[in-house]
Amino acid sequence: MKFAPPRGMRDFYPEDLRRRNALFDAWRNAALKYGFEEYDAPVVETEELLIRKGGEEIVNQIYSFADKSGRRLALRPEMTPSLARIVIDRQKMLTLPLKWFSIPQCFRYERMTKGRKREHYQWNLDIVGEEGLLAEVEVLGAAITALQSLGLTHQHFQVRIGSRAILADLYRSLGLTADKFMAVCLVLDKMEKIPPEVTHQMLTDEGFSDAEIQKVLSLMSIKTIADVEAQLGGATENTRDVNELLALMKASGLAEYIVYDISIIRGLSYYTGIVFEAFDTNRKFRAIFGGGRYDNLLSSLGGESLPCVGLGFGDVVVQELLADLGKFQDDSQTLDFAVGFMTENERPFAIQTATLLRNRDYQVSLSLKSERAKKFFNQANRSGAHYAIYLGPDEAAQQLVGIKDLRKGEQKHLPLNDLKNETFA
Amino acid sequence: MKFAPPRGMRDFYPEDLRRRNALFDAWRNAALKYGFEEYDAPVVETEELLIRKGGEEIVNQIYSFADKSGRRLALRPEMTPSLARIVIDRQKMLTLPLKWFSIPQCFRYERMTKGRKREHYQWNLDIVGEEGLLAEVEVLGAAITALQSLGLTHQHFQVRIGSRAILADLYRSLGLTADKFMAVCLVLDKMEKIPPEVTHQMLTDEGFSDAEIQKVLSLMSIKTIADVEAQLGGATENTRDVNELLALMKASGLAEYIVYDISIIRGLSYYTGIVFEAFDTNRKFRAIFGGGRYDNLLSSLGGESLPCVGLGFGDVVVQELLADLGKFQDDSQTLDFAVGFMTENERPFAIQTATLLRNRDYQVSLSLKSERAKKFFNQANRSGAHYAIYLGPDEAAQQLVGIKDLRKGEQKHLPLNDLKNETFA
Repeated sequence: MKFAPPRGMRDFYPEDLRRRNALFDAWRNAALKYGFEEYDAPVVETEELLIRKGGEEIVNQIYSFADKSGRRLALRPEMTPSLARIVIDRQKMLTLPLKWFSIPQCFRYERMTKGRKREHYQWNLDIVGEEGLLAEVEVLGAAITALQSLGLTHQHFQVRIGSRAILADLYRSLGLTADKFMAVCLVLDKMEKIPPEVTHQMLTDEGFSDAEIQKVLSLMSIKTIADVEAQLGGATENTRDVNELLALMKASGLAEYIVYDISIIRGLSYYTGIVFEAFDTNRKFRAIFGGGRYDNLLSSLGGESLPCVGLGFGDVVVQELLADLGKFQDDSQTLDFAVGFMTENERPFAIQTATLLRNRDYQVSLSLKSERAKKFFNQANRSGAHYAIYLGPDEAAQQLVGIKDLRKGEQKHLPLNDLKNETFA
Repeated sequence: MKFAPPRGMRDFYPEDLRRRNALFDAWRNAALKYGFEEYDAPVVETEELLIRKGGEEIVNQIYSFADKSGRRLALRPEMTPSLARIVIDRQKMLTLPLKWFSIPQCFRYERMTKGRKREHYQWNLDIVGEEGLLAEVEVLGAAITALQSLGLTHQHFQVRIGSRAILADLYRSLGLTADKFMAVCLVLDKMEKIPPEVTHQMLTDEGFSDAEIQKVLSLMSIKTIADVEAQLGGATENTRDVNELLALMKASGLAEYIVYDISIIRGLSYYTGIVFEAFDTNRKFRAIFGGGRYDNLLSSLGGESLPCVGLGFGDVVVQELLADLGKFQDDSQTLDFAVGFMTENERPFAIQTATLLRNRDYQVSLSLKSERAKKFFNQANRSGAHYAIYLGPDEAAQQLVGIKDLRKGEQKHLPLNDLKNETFA
């Protein structure tokens, strides 16, 4: 038998888990600060829910199976279908807008490359039931706040804003018909990652002529909303939307984190409006987070039509970036006290000592067997404990506790009962 | 399409998730107080790891499937095999003893009855590498502490201690041969839940005569360790162990939570020593938690032999008990501020206000569109916010913020910039 985890999946030893928790705490605290509420749904969903129309890549990557009664189930590759499902299931009872977040583990069977596992945790932030741009502003603000709390600033990352609606306007301005627009989006979304000739071939396969392909690709050289408006012959509702979003982000004090980028398209077909992706400044890594507006998903699944904005933020890329920038969180254990004892006779006294401290909400590691002082103090130092208490026969006889401050090196003795009130730094 | 979750699985709407988090916090805080470190492993493991020898019920309840390359995988039904795997994988590098905890979601395909879902979350506490009884004491102390922090005392629940080793001694004292002992354990473990004639039949099927069955069942009328010693003709290493455990729990101040109970056997075959289960005092619910010593699991999987003590504590029964006792945690949202605005013109000012407060780590719900004062304050009151700030054209013009304390009903106005320093209760 092999003892590695299944291929593409991760074990989290305590030091890994502390890093994961530090990230989850950053996500959770930012979400709560922005007034989002946490929800969750099963990691196993019906295959039917997850396999949407559209033939997207994601559908081929789903881990699916039959349960013992023949139900087709699958491990979720993303959280949005589950969110849509649970909103529709209580659509009449929920007070809109919803501002919800979750930290689901998601699974995709895909080839293993750097930053790609077969599972990851993904912070999902969604606002359901609001068509105004403040929904985008709140989602982006929370995501940027989480990255700030991890020590990153606009010197380290930027959020790039695109608009499916603007791209559609531009596409129409080229005289092309709307029916192939979604296919074009999926090709353009991939073009940074694939060779130009492959992009060309994919568009040829969609039935475009060389001249049309030239036109489509020329759109990607547009740099600003002003460029867009020049191409379209003036401002449109959609260019005004992007400008308004930029202005609102400025009111949030986050203007320097945001830039318009026509190449931001997103690979999922359910997006309908503004979309966004955050990248490290040096573009060394894949997107840190991404999302956008998806106003048709709920109605396409059979629910009422509700405007939605969502964001997905995985745990893998941000941890790579933090490591690369030397901003990894401290992963050492935190302990207030280590308590040890010299012989088995002091065991009850050591238990009493640990109990008194734990009743005061201190984190206490109690040695599980008697040991020599030297061994105990070595281990106490390694454990990161602030204080060490080592109990021998004399201490037990006198009900006295010797406390060593491992940071200052100072030591003092106290009667056991004084532990109930003594102040520790 | 149906919008319910897959059968036997749960959605967690925000109010459900807050209750889940309150329980997880109680578990996590108790574990940290006792010096345990958190770890995690994939919810998907290889089927080979999970299907152990023994033909136990659990094996028939595993959700298993093949991935796209034909690997046999499965959703874990319990955490202990994963724990054993990751310990063995780093056996040479880890400093023993390990005191580890985790809160995995576990899956079993089983018939749906009260308190039985097809998934649950299960707090796992394990000590690996310590043969002394302090391992049991620490695991039990942490579990009891978690229940205390949820408002429960020995008036509400008790931990019942059994011993596989004592049962084996008693079994041998009846003149029965050891080869069927494990099968007897599995039958006796179930006997409270099934009719006597079924128990009788199961033992008959194992090849016992009526007289032998009579003897085996008579063991279940033993009430105390003194009774055990009378039957065995004196104290044994194993009866002394249980008495020592009771004494150490007394030193922890937890004596009144613990009682010896010969009928506590546990259904899993890997237990080797003392086992335990906690029940509500009225025995209205299934076990709140259970566990015990399993000294042979790692070696049986191919690792070094290491003594282990573990405990599993599911989220379903304890929540039922808390609800039954009226001790359910408050599940309402907590918010410091609700911020609203009268017209779209005040949107940037409202964003600035929310940003200042969030920068001070307050939890702020910002309305996503303009609304009338009455509607805003109604919603602010429902949201549980402590303070409400409603901004109209006058406030925006003067850069003044009106703050209403929704608990006291008091209102005051402050210049926007004063929000940076104002003290809020």
